[in-house]
Amino acid sequence: MDVPRLRAVTPGCTGTAYFDNAGAALPTERVTQTVIDHLLLERRVGGYAAADQAEARLEEVYSSAARLLNARPDEIALVENATRAWDMAFYAVQFRPGERILTSRSEYPSNGLAFLQAKKRYGVEVEPIPDDEHGQVCLDSLARMLDRGGVRLVAVNHVPTYDGVVHPAAAIGELANRAGALFLLDACQSVGQIPLDVRRIGCHLLSASGRKYLRGPRGTGFLYVSREVVAGLEPPLLDLRAATWTGHDEYRIRPDARRFETWERNVAGVLGLGAAIDGALDLGLEPIRQRVGRLADRLRGGLGAIDGVVVQDRGAVRSGIVTFTRRGRSAQQLVDGLRAAGVTAAVSFPSRARFDTRPAKPPEVVRASVHYYNTEAELDRLLDAVGEL
Amino acid sequence: MDVPRLRAVTPGCTGTAYFDNAGAALPTERVTQTVIDHLLLERRVGGYAAADQAEARLEEVYSSAARLLNARPDEIALVENATRAWDMAFYAVQFRPGERILTSRSEYPSNGLAFLQAKKRYGVEVEPIPDDEHGQVCLDSLARMLDRGGVRLVAVNHVPTYDGVVHPAAAIGELANRAGALFLLDACQSVGQIPLDVRRIGCHLLSASGRKYLRGPRGTGFLYVSREVVAGLEPPLLDLRAATWTGHDEYRIRPDARRFETWERNVAGVLGLGAAIDGALDLGLEPIRQRVGRLADRLRGGLGAIDGVVVQDRGAVRSGIVTFTRRGRSAQQLVDGLRAAGVTAAVSFPSRARFDTRPAKPPEVVRASVHYYNTEAELDRLLDAVGEL
Repeated sequence: MDVPRLRAVTPGCTGTAYFDNAGAALPTERVTQTVIDHLLLERRVGGYAAADQAEARLEEVYSSAARLLNARPDEIALVENATRAWDMAFYAVQFRPGERILTSRSEYPSNGLAFLQAKKRYGVEVEPIPDDEHGQVCLDSLARMLDRGGVRLVAVNHVPTYDGVVHPAAAIGELANRAGALFLLDACQSVGQIPLDVRRIGCHLLSASGRKYLRGPRGTGFLYVSREVVAGLEPPLLDLRAATWTGHDEYRIRPDARRFETWERNVAGVLGLGAAIDGALDLGLEPIRQRVGRLADRLRGGLGAIDGVVVQDRGAVRSGIVTFTRRGRSAQQLVDGLRAAGVTAAVSFPSRARFDTRPAKPPEVVRASVHYYNTEAELDRLLDAVGEL
Repeated sequence: MDVPRLRAVTPGCTGTAYFDNAGAALPTERVTQTVIDHLLLERRVGGYAAADQAEARLEEVYSSAARLLNARPDEIALVENATRAWDMAFYAVQFRPGERILTSRSEYPSNGLAFLQAKKRYGVEVEPIPDDEHGQVCLDSLARMLDRGGVRLVAVNHVPTYDGVVHPAAAIGELANRAGALFLLDACQSVGQIPLDVRRIGCHLLSASGRKYLRGPRGTGFLYVSREVVAGLEPPLLDLRAATWTGHDEYRIRPDARRFETWERNVAGVLGLGAAIDGALDLGLEPIRQRVGRLADRLRGGLGAIDGVVVQDRGAVRSGIVTFTRRGRSAQQLVDGLRAAGVTAAVSFPSRARFDTRPAKPPEVVRASVHYYNTEAELDRLLDAVGEL
């Protein structure tokens, strides 16, 4: 990977040492320029004529997203963000009272809220799967929970926002499929940093974010819906993109994943998302995973050598998300100090994962999420700054 | 209104004579530049740091939208488009079987589809209100329908997409309020061309589009939710913007209209929307309405004088949407011919309004929607071109 070249086309690299890739990664020149070019076209010829001109390229975004996930283009819905993608999938499940939803202890609050709303609305049971000794979804526990029957949905995040864990998606998929449960994978934090193959993972539904590791624009996301399940999932909200009004009292929902889209969209953003996905595909997800993993491990090693610093990551397999605390300093103090030293990191709040019932859960952590365009010199800048705070 | 100056800051005015303002109007330089400036900031400092820097300006967008509607900032939700705005309001109503929804015959397909989905889901009745002799919602019929009781929701569009009608929103609101029904006004096509005052109209909910007469970016919209009704409307989808996960099994939905938002958003687009609203407020909605009305009437007059052309607009009160047919030419042929003559217009399909049961409904029409930046010379260009086709 030609890191100097990749940095040269990433204007944000000339600023701070940027470690908020799990929040929103730095886009390439090409991604932003793709968005801007379309905005200027819209300004010149109007929004609809501009979309007509971009029609073939818009279709290519579906193909690119499909290639990224080893899916088919008709299994992709392009939506406004990963939350919307996840929501359209989750709320499409017509739960019956007493059905069970299994989820991870590290689940993101938005997903947790949706589970609880479904609990109230349908009388479903929501059951967090215990962690194993590494903080990953415990497969033995999951197998036992599935054996008890009545599980309609297994919905877990792949890479939690709170620490370095990577949940064993493919093993979860195998168990869920064997039990006849739907499997919804929240790949918000894994897409763009880890190779994703929906066939291998065995998920029926996968939600993804544009702005995070994929380096796409804000306000973009997408949803994979397997052909096998799409017909049974009615969109929670219907518009004329999703369905056709065929008669006074009749409508027909379209047969493909685009039933989860809305007609009106930020076309410029969608094109930028396409450019971001193509950029990731050009580099290759496996080389990205390897470099992100190497940098993250190096950072964890360096942090662990600093007196009073505790790396808070769990996971036998870990992502590019590195979290830590330092004795005598709040996470916010550390992040503020890092900012003053030209390093961008974020505060993360593991306490917000309400299904995580560990008694000794750290209240707040610094989250330094690395990407392939980060350098060893930037890691050292972070380490030096933490050492001096 | 200083039209030459307004055109000078509208780069699209140097292109075709643009009459697709009901599709997506031409943005000003300032609107597009506001979006681009934020995208460049995001590229430089990252998406989250950029949003932090824009925080005060983001809050001002709520104030601007509130000022536009004579609402309060906490009654505004900024969302991805008008469909999303309308959906979040409509699907938040917890209908009981047998409750009635009254709507217009000119209702937009997305709304029609949602009604029919609710009919299937909840067993509600969906009843189109008859038109009066002008094609507007018939107030006498509405009063009688309300008198029969059981109406939970009156949901009508203010300005249909299909022809020039403006429905009598305030009179509808008065009747709906008297009957104790919720009133949801779809202002997608009226916002930015007609003054809107939610207190005067008496609507509890109003959905609005950014890209149409407001001249905002694509992928933007907003929802007004009256303080009086917000507590009783549970968002159909919940995320951590809408609610707080307060305990293992508990959550609290926020008390204001932002319960209908999603945390992740296209921040650049929202800022562009703010610039667009401010632009409309600077000009004043009453002057805009007057100029749009004058131009539209002039266009209708000119079209009516061309042999074989029939103006298809109904409405005792009319909007900037002008529709027509020409004997011996399909609407698509006319639009193609206009394009060749440097005039942008659109084809509209009244037959897609399935609640409109007029036997003599035209199959397709040319829709030439005028805005205040159009000129008399552009109208003449359109008229000359139609005359020659």
